[in-house]
Order: sequence, then C-alpha cells, then structure tokens
Amino acid sequence: MNSKLSAQPVPESMRRVRVVLSHTSHPGNIGAAARAMKTMGFSRLVLVNPKIFPDAQAETMASGAGDVLASAQVVASLAEALSGTVLALAMTARRRELAAEPLWARAGATELAAVAGGGEVALVFGNETSGLSNDELAQCARWALIPANPEYSSLNLAAAVQVMCYELRQAMLGVVPAPSIAGAGAPAAHEEIDGLMAHLEQAAIASGFLDPEKPGRLMLRLRRLFGRAGLEKEEVNILRGLLASFAQPTRKRHPKACGGIDQ
Amino acid sequence: MNSKLSAQPVPESMRRVRVVLSHTSHPGNIGAAARAMKTMGFSRLVLVNPKIFPDAQAETMASGAGDVLASAQVVASLAEALSGTVLALAMTARRRELAAEPLWARAGATELAAVAGGGEVALVFGNETSGLSNDELAQCARWALIPANPEYSSLNLAAAVQVMCYELRQAMLGVVPAPSIAGAGAPAAHEEIDGLMAHLEQAAIASGFLDPEKPGRLMLRLRRLFGRAGLEKEEVNILRGLLASFAQPTRKRHPKACGGIDQ
Repeated sequence: MNSKLSAQPVPESMRRVRVVLSHTSHPGNIGAAARAMKTMGFSRLVLVNPKIFPDAQAETMASGAGDVLASAQVVASLAEALSGTVLALAMTARRRELAAEPLWARAGATELAAVAGGGEVALVFGNETSGLSNDELAQCARWALIPANPEYSSLNLAAAVQVMCYELRQAMLGVVPAPSIAGAGAPAAHEEIDGLMAHLEQAAIASGFLDPEKPGRLMLRLRRLFGRAGLEKEEVNILRGLLASFAQPTRKRHPKACGGIDQ
Repeated sequence: MNSKLSAQPVPESMRRVRVVLSHTSHPGNIGAAARAMKTMGFSRLVLVNPKIFPDAQAETMASGAGDVLASAQVVASLAEALSGTVLALAMTARRRELAAEPLWARAGATELAAVAGGGEVALVFGNETSGLSNDELAQCARWALIPANPEYSSLNLAAAVQVMCYELRQAMLGVVPAPSIAGAGAPAAHEEIDGLMAHLEQAAIASGFLDPEKPGRLMLRLRRLFGRAGLEKEEVNILRGLLASFAQPTRKRHPKACGGIDQ
C-alpha cells in the first residue's frame, strides 16, 4: 500500500479549491459538508445565501471540522463566490435541457485537479431540493454528475460533497492529472468572463440580434460555448477588442460621412 | 457521456452485496447509510446489534430509502451477518497492529466487485467511535481504508458507506470512457467551422480590427479557441448570425439616416 494518499502534506493546489454551497436550506447539511471537506483535506467553504447560518446544528454536524465552519465565507451571489476562480465545476443531479453533456464525477475531479495546478477552482453544489438554478449553472464552465441509481439518485448534500472531495483528493494526490483543457496562456478569471459576456450581450442588443424583452437562451448558450473553451485572459481581450471594433463605424477604413460597414 | 453508469438495470452481482453495520450507536446514521446505499443501487442492509433500531430518526434520515430500512436484517453477531459470503471487506479508519496492509478503498471495491461475480460479498463498517473490534476484523479476509486527511480522518459513518458504495457501483458497472468536451447538439462539420472562420476574418477586416496586410496570428488564435470549444452546428449558426448583425447598420432598432451602432 502506497502511503502517498494519506501521509503527504497538503499541496498548494488543494488550498486553491473552494467548496461553494448555494442556497443551502438545512444548517446541519452545512456542518456535515464541512466535516466531509476536512476529512479530505479541504478547508475553504463559501456559502451563497444560506437559509440559516451560523447555527448550532451546523456546529454539531461539523464534529471536528468547526474550524472550517468558523472560517466559512458567506456571500450574496454565486458570482461573488466564484470571483477569482478560473474553473468552476457545478454538480447537477440530473441532465437538463440545453445542457452540454455533464462529466462524470471522476472526470470532473480530474479536470478540476489539473486546473488547480495553476489557479483557483470551485466545486459548486446547489440547494438540497432544487439544485442549482439555470442561471447558476450557466456561470460554471463544467458540470458533473455523480453516477447513481436512476431510480433513486438523491444523494444527501453532504454525501455528495464527501464523494466529490474524495475524488478530488485522489485526483490531486494520487492520479496523474489529465492535460488541462485550457490553452497555454493564463486562464481568464471568472469576472473577466463575466465582463466578456456582458459586452457580448450589450453588442447583441445594440445590433438588434438580441431582443432584451425576449432574451431567450442566447446568452446561456454563448456562455456554455465559451465555458467549454476554457478562455485565456488574452483571448478575452481579443474578443472584446473585436466586439468594440464591430460597434464602431469603421472610420479608418471607410472615411465616409455615414459609417455603415459594407461587406 | 456514456449512459452505462446511470441507465443500466441492476446486475446480478449488485444484488450479491450486503452492507453490514456493526454495533451502530446512532439510528440516524443507519437511516443515512440506507439512503447512501440506495443511491448507488444497493439494497441489502444487515445490522449487527444496533443500539437503537428501528427508530424514527433512522426513518427520517433514510429519506426515500425507507424500503432498504424496512427490509434490513438485524442479527446478533458479525459471524451471522457474514454467513454465506465468500468475501468480506472490513472498513478501517486507521492502521492497526497485527494488521496486514489494508487496501485503498478503490482497490478494495474492485476486488469485491470481481468476487461478487460468483458469490455473496459483504462490506463491513464498525461502530462510529470505536470501529470494528479486532475479533470482527479477523473475520474479514480483506481490510480497506478510505484515503483521508491524516490530521482529521473521521468520516461520518454514512459518508463512508456513500464513498464505498459509490466505488463499488463503478467497479461493478465499469469505468466509462472520458466524455467528449463537445456539447449535446450535433457537432459542426469541418467546412462549417471554416465558413465561420472566413466570416470572422472578413468581419474583422471590415471593422478595421484586422489589417489584411499584417494579419499576424489573430485568425490562428481564434481558430484554436473555437477548436477547443468543440462547436456545434447550431452554435456556428448563432455566431454567424451575430456577426451578420454586427455588420449591418441597425436599421430596425435605430431607424436613423445614419446607421452607426451606438452603445
């Protein structure tokens, strides 16, 4: 038996993992999730709008992981929770329409581990009953699914956190990571992607392509597309430069009075 | 994504697995363990001298796995629980003296899955505080350890059941190939990507962003970016629609004489 998995000091990449619980209803689950995290060597817990927190039941269920609870960060939105991350993996309990194919839990953990070698990452869990909203899912570049009994796939929240942290620990300490999906350059941070998406939306509205009254799923689709690509900082800059150029009458190349773009 | 792990009917070998909880103190843990089992497709629960069972708290924690609790077998000794099995895998939270080297959880599950092809097997968990006694350990041919944080390795009982049942399910149903990074829709053909890149290049030249005399590496970079995303046909159409809208004076939304796009 190799002692690597249990005796190694916490590598830097493990410190780059934040576990995000969004809109958790039961404080006991928050405590149990903190315990699950700590058993696998993770300590950064971020809570998005928890229904009840702090709470005595969370403390009880955390058992020896009170320190994880005590240092938990409470934020008002998933965007805030993901600020600074370069990859977020959303856990989903079922397939959804328009969804890109989710990864299996193990593949998702492997990818997260590879990316954590160079930047902050997040593992994102939704509400016990309703899961993550479509808007929240859209903010995560990857989705993962724990393989389960199709007739009863309802894992307890903390149990799902346990399984994912277990996989992530092994991916980080024991298994050779898969090559990163991102390009060779520095990955874009969550807020940089947000900035690009806002710019794209604004441009699509300005051009008449997107009706803000009936937005449909356009932005969701575009977010998924760019999410899959794993954008680099420089690519975000290029795309925003392109968008800015499209939005201007082409004065330089077409010094006419009326600046329509001809093709 | 291969649907094998979630859509396959329960194979015979999964029915040959019994989960044995010995001397469990808290009925809530029994219920939560039943839930963990059922989410992974296992249904045979055997309780050796539970402190309190049946109990309302067990029912509550079992959630939708009340059937697993209802059919649980209560016995007086581990020997009775293991009667008829050909392999028992004991879970241990720490190394013990006199112990042969334990297996890691995954290796233990793999072995159990292999043996379950031809006979009854058991996964054995001890008391929440003291674990399995040396006498109980001695009755199991294999021991396994869930890799954990050496500074805090205390998994909740049901969380350990969840991890082991998760590993066992995967060992029994097979490891799935890495899923495609592409989305769920029909992938774009090579010539469709070429068409998009030509459109993008034309638009970038028309807007003045790209100087055709000095193209640099812009198109190469954009091709690489979209290549990583694994574009779908419909996404290509959306992007080309956007590009076309950017190239037109926005007549519909801005019915002015001079059609510049304002932001």
